[in-house]
Amino acid sequence: MPELRRDPVVGRWVIIAAERAKRPQDFVGLAGVPENAGRSACPFCAGQEDQTPPEIMAYRPDDSAPDGPGWTLRVVPNKYPALQIEGDLDPRGEGIYDRMNGIGAHEVIIETPDHEATLATMPASELEAMLRAWVERMEDLERDTRFKYIQIFKNVGEAAGASLDHPHCQLIATPVVPKRISEEVAGARGYYEYKERCVFCDIVRQESEDGRRLVFADDVLVSAVPFAPRFPFETQILPRRHEASFKNVVEEEIKHLALHLHLLLEKINGLLDTPPYNLVLHTAPCGQDDLAHYHWHVEIIPKLAKVAGFEWGTGFYINPTIPEEVASDLRNYSPVETLRTY
Amino acid sequence: MPELRRDPVVGRWVIIAAERAKRPQDFVGLAGVPENAGRSACPFCAGQEDQTPPEIMAYRPDDSAPDGPGWTLRVVPNKYPALQIEGDLDPRGEGIYDRMNGIGAHEVIIETPDHEATLATMPASELEAMLRAWVERMEDLERDTRFKYIQIFKNVGEAAGASLDHPHCQLIATPVVPKRISEEVAGARGYYEYKERCVFCDIVRQESEDGRRLVFADDVLVSAVPFAPRFPFETQILPRRHEASFKNVVEEEIKHLALHLHLLLEKINGLLDTPPYNLVLHTAPCGQDDLAHYHWHVEIIPKLAKVAGFEWGTGFYINPTIPEEVASDLRNYSPVETLRTY
Repeated sequence: MPELRRDPVVGRWVIIAAERAKRPQDFVGLAGVPENAGRSACPFCAGQEDQTPPEIMAYRPDDSAPDGPGWTLRVVPNKYPALQIEGDLDPRGEGIYDRMNGIGAHEVIIETPDHEATLATMPASELEAMLRAWVERMEDLERDTRFKYIQIFKNVGEAAGASLDHPHCQLIATPVVPKRISEEVAGARGYYEYKERCVFCDIVRQESEDGRRLVFADDVLVSAVPFAPRFPFETQILPRRHEASFKNVVEEEIKHLALHLHLLLEKINGLLDTPPYNLVLHTAPCGQDDLAHYHWHVEIIPKLAKVAGFEWGTGFYINPTIPEEVASDLRNYSPVETLRTY
Repeated sequence: MPELRRDPVVGRWVIIAAERAKRPQDFVGLAGVPENAGRSACPFCAGQEDQTPPEIMAYRPDDSAPDGPGWTLRVVPNKYPALQIEGDLDPRGEGIYDRMNGIGAHEVIIETPDHEATLATMPASELEAMLRAWVERMEDLERDTRFKYIQIFKNVGEAAGASLDHPHCQLIATPVVPKRISEEVAGARGYYEYKERCVFCDIVRQESEDGRRLVFADDVLVSAVPFAPRFPFETQILPRRHEASFKNVVEEEIKHLALHLHLLLEKINGLLDTPPYNLVLHTAPCGQDDLAHYHWHVEIIPKLAKVAGFEWGTGFYINPTIPEEVASDLRNYSPVETLRTY
């Protein structure tokens, strides 16, 4: 059973993943090599459905059976879950320390049967289906009152923490609101109490008017480099319409978000030679859909810099790129395809 | 001039390091290869003193001239500083955003002339000298009232952010108290207000009595795996005597800290095949030496795991090791040398 433990100083919870427990030799030498064994052994490819736990949901033709081929998207439990779905939290103390059982959900969203696809190359229909699956899984999991937050994220490339190449994202439902989310919601509340405006709405407004950090904007969404990004080529996508939870996204936003993701990844891949990256959805904690001060958004962090001692010590990041230059580079980059003549 | 920018939601400051500014091509292909060009070209080796900016201080025989050989330890300004020493902060707004000039100090402490040395192999005298240099630089820089925090840290190995092999640590003095430090001090204050005891003193007490997470303890210091570590094989060293600032460390503590660093690194290197790591000193903000609730300590984080989307999104860490097992592995590991017969 995984366990949640709380740092007694800063209150940060960590997951001690006993099911995934590693021994010292697991970190030495060849252990660093990714598990990717190519397409033939890929558990997420069509025809290999028996390599995953039984599917939770799938988009597939009406006449195709669960856990067989024919699907266009599958959601399955993670085979090595960081948190366990069955059981009670059973919070308890141990002297000055606090712990509870590692209860939660850990799912994998297999975005497409195409092993070689990427967000930059997938057709719009597949990107949109992935986003609709996010909504469906959030709606379902939020009914379980043990869960306080649902984190959807995507790791691409070994340096960004991916252990399989096949296009997929992950979902982890946690039984406590994570520290980073509490801080973001509290920071946004502070701003709202002072100004009576949503800080994210203000960011959308200022970035649209200013233009120097914009990468791509339309009537529905704004893709921009943050004013104070932690990492080189970090970008964010914000909806113009105020909405705390991604669960309440509308169809028009899904279509535009698919387009923004495609364009941003195409530019990032072209400019930076397809770097590893993390994609993170920020959304309101469970049951807090009506927050006037919070506003869902998506963050993309290419893995280009090493996090070092100064950052771990202080939480202060040194970014060796200038946000306005990065935005200009991304804006001006045209994918090679558009220059080809055929 | 580097610039400090504040995230409008969570209030985190970042350093936009214009002096180090990189272009997209700097992140592609060979740019990832470390700059280490071997001993002959090492700017930190004896005889290459003209490759660094003029020294701020050094431990050297009385008859040896500054910026020449003969030294046993040198402190020099970082040639590519993240922050600049001259100037005023000049804080200013820009719509909803805040920025100020990137004023601060960024120094390099060259621990020894021996290019091949490590904390695990350096003689006690050199380790102690390194720690005394930390104190001297803190005392000097804290006189500059523009500085609010002094972060001392060490990156070893390219994956941990080091760009040079020669043994060195770094110091960055920042003009704002970093977020992670404020959180730690605030968390410790909350505990103190409730219990009227220092949380770190309580950690020392509970770990000493419990013993399961201890790696090495003596009358002066405790080296232990934290109860809720973020990373595999993360360890911390805490002094038994309550003291907020490392600046006020006593000679006995320096001697014991040198020994603990040596032993811990010897065990970590042996067990994990000399992994990259970060070492971070946690100490009180400038001018807050008398905090009853804060307590300096040292953190060692071997670079074994990738930080991925879930961690960036939530600040929630998944640790695939069990702290009590890690402590037991470290406790039981005896360096190979002691087994040799010669």
